[in-house]
Amino acid sequence: MNSFWNEYPNIQSELEVVSKIIKNNIKTNEKVIENALLELLNSGGKLLRPAFLIISGKFGDYNRDKILPLAAVIEMLHMATLVHDDIIDDSLLRRNSPTTQAKYGKDVAVFMGDYLFSRCFLLLSKNNSMEDMQEVAKVISTICKQEINQFTSRFSEDMSIKKYLKRIGGKTAALFALSFYVSAKQSNCDEKLSRQLGRIGYEIGMAFQIVDDILDYTGEEKEVGKPVGNDLKEGLYTLPLIFAYKKDKTRLEGLLSKESMTEENVNKIIKTTIELGGIEKSRELAIKYTNKTFKRIKALPNCESKNILLRITEKLLKRKY
Amino acid sequence: MNSFWNEYPNIQSELEVVSKIIKNNIKTNEKVIENALLELLNSGGKLLRPAFLIISGKFGDYNRDKILPLAAVIEMLHMATLVHDDIIDDSLLRRNSPTTQAKYGKDVAVFMGDYLFSRCFLLLSKNNSMEDMQEVAKVISTICKQEINQFTSRFSEDMSIKKYLKRIGGKTAALFALSFYVSAKQSNCDEKLSRQLGRIGYEIGMAFQIVDDILDYTGEEKEVGKPVGNDLKEGLYTLPLIFAYKKDKTRLEGLLSKESMTEENVNKIIKTTIELGGIEKSRELAIKYTNKTFKRIKALPNCESKNILLRITEKLLKRKY
Repeated sequence: MNSFWNEYPNIQSELEVVSKIIKNNIKTNEKVIENALLELLNSGGKLLRPAFLIISGKFGDYNRDKILPLAAVIEMLHMATLVHDDIIDDSLLRRNSPTTQAKYGKDVAVFMGDYLFSRCFLLLSKNNSMEDMQEVAKVISTICKQEINQFTSRFSEDMSIKKYLKRIGGKTAALFALSFYVSAKQSNCDEKLSRQLGRIGYEIGMAFQIVDDILDYTGEEKEVGKPVGNDLKEGLYTLPLIFAYKKDKTRLEGLLSKESMTEENVNKIIKTTIELGGIEKSRELAIKYTNKTFKRIKALPNCESKNILLRITEKLLKRKY
Repeated sequence: MNSFWNEYPNIQSELEVVSKIIKNNIKTNEKVIENALLELLNSGGKLLRPAFLIISGKFGDYNRDKILPLAAVIEMLHMATLVHDDIIDDSLLRRNSPTTQAKYGKDVAVFMGDYLFSRCFLLLSKNNSMEDMQEVAKVISTICKQEINQFTSRFSEDMSIKKYLKRIGGKTAALFALSFYVSAKQSNCDEKLSRQLGRIGYEIGMAFQIVDDILDYTGEEKEVGKPVGNDLKEGLYTLPLIFAYKKDKTRLEGLLSKESMTEENVNKIIKTTIELGGIEKSRELAIKYTNKTFKRIKALPNCESKNILLRITEKLLKRKY
């Protein structure tokens, strides 16, 4: 298990149960599938989304028999989108391990993701309500729409902060928000508190994705677990570049077409983006989301979960990996 | 709409409603997605699975407000597997039109299929029961497992009729069976009748897929809607070849590796398969399934649906396209 939760044994032990539930639910005679999914599960992700469910549920009447299977569903859903996302991004590495598509081919990766989706819904239909199902299905639609939007916008200089925020809202923050919200509801928190927790998930997700996108410019491959400049090479123009482009597009023009994306130019774009303050401005926006969410967390009822939430939010958004 | 249903106006008019429900449920601001899915929907598929739901439901208390949305779900599910299937098969054509992956790239096709899956589950969660959801999720798992199994067995000479039947059972017949079964249950047919109808769906599916696989050897590209010998080139060794290989593998050895799959060798394999009686033996097995299902249909309670079922089963399994 990822060391992220070492200081929180109550969360860590619950996450171990979530891992077990996932393992039980991906079992199949088709060993290619099971092994590939186990590799992904064991590759040391932080299991952030399940942890959010556990933390959020503890603001209400936490019932682990209900929350942990739901946490497993959300993580499996996330795994499915990772497997499919890597196909789109042509990624070879994730968490320093070869991606499913790199190891087994895009073809297997397609149905591997689908298999995970189907197991999610099977598990959901056994344990949860139609309302949960609807919330989950809606978030998957949103993720898919924003992933396709991201793909069809590759190498496009028609970029804006507004479009970027909508995109990361859909592809990342929506699932963070869902994790907090469904667990709160399931734990009998009232609608107002559930929505507050959902909003916190959303803001953490926004800040988290901005930090992730900054790391594509400033990270070390070994720490980030995937090559730096990867998004850029794929034509995914994220917040640092958008800010830099807004400030002085003449310095970046001619570098942003698909054809011009040589190793040398990628380095030039990264350098220019940094020089034009793209990283700083992005950090500022991440901090804005973080401060907003801190304020919101501080207004929550006092409990152990609140303290944990404050500490891990800080840790998450200062990460270098 | 496909002319297949011209003689059955009562089915055809219901299928038009199903198409409308699908159209309403794939609407999105992301026009790339909506247009690609509309193209697929309008490319003239027979809407077999929705028709099966309508036919099966009429053996009970047919309630179109319940059955037609469910029929839309099953067709959307089928569309999702088609989109993903074409990625695996590298197919360029389906129903004489470019496939989603050929037109928009594998990348878009991945999330396009996922989007459809999510819309299926959203529609299901609005209209149906948890039991329906479970049945649907199980069938998707089965389809995925058999699709992956099919892919990982490519170019393998370790083929057997048993493995082949399991595979087509999962990738085709399971969804046919589900179409009949869920609709019968939903229409208050008793468990015995529902299972009989499900069994009929399964047998039609088996015969249907065998006929489909024969067409890869004997069909005309214009009629089949995709190039002949396509499966073979992809290393998918289906029933005609399995029978031929069983009869005299010495005549096929050396032709079946990936490297040897030249245009010339593909033609040689097709010719040898025909000479060794692979097509005839496959037809015999398709007829065996057909006769079994005819017997089962004849034992059903008399009604208009029964007559339609007899006639379309005959038509389906004698098709050349």
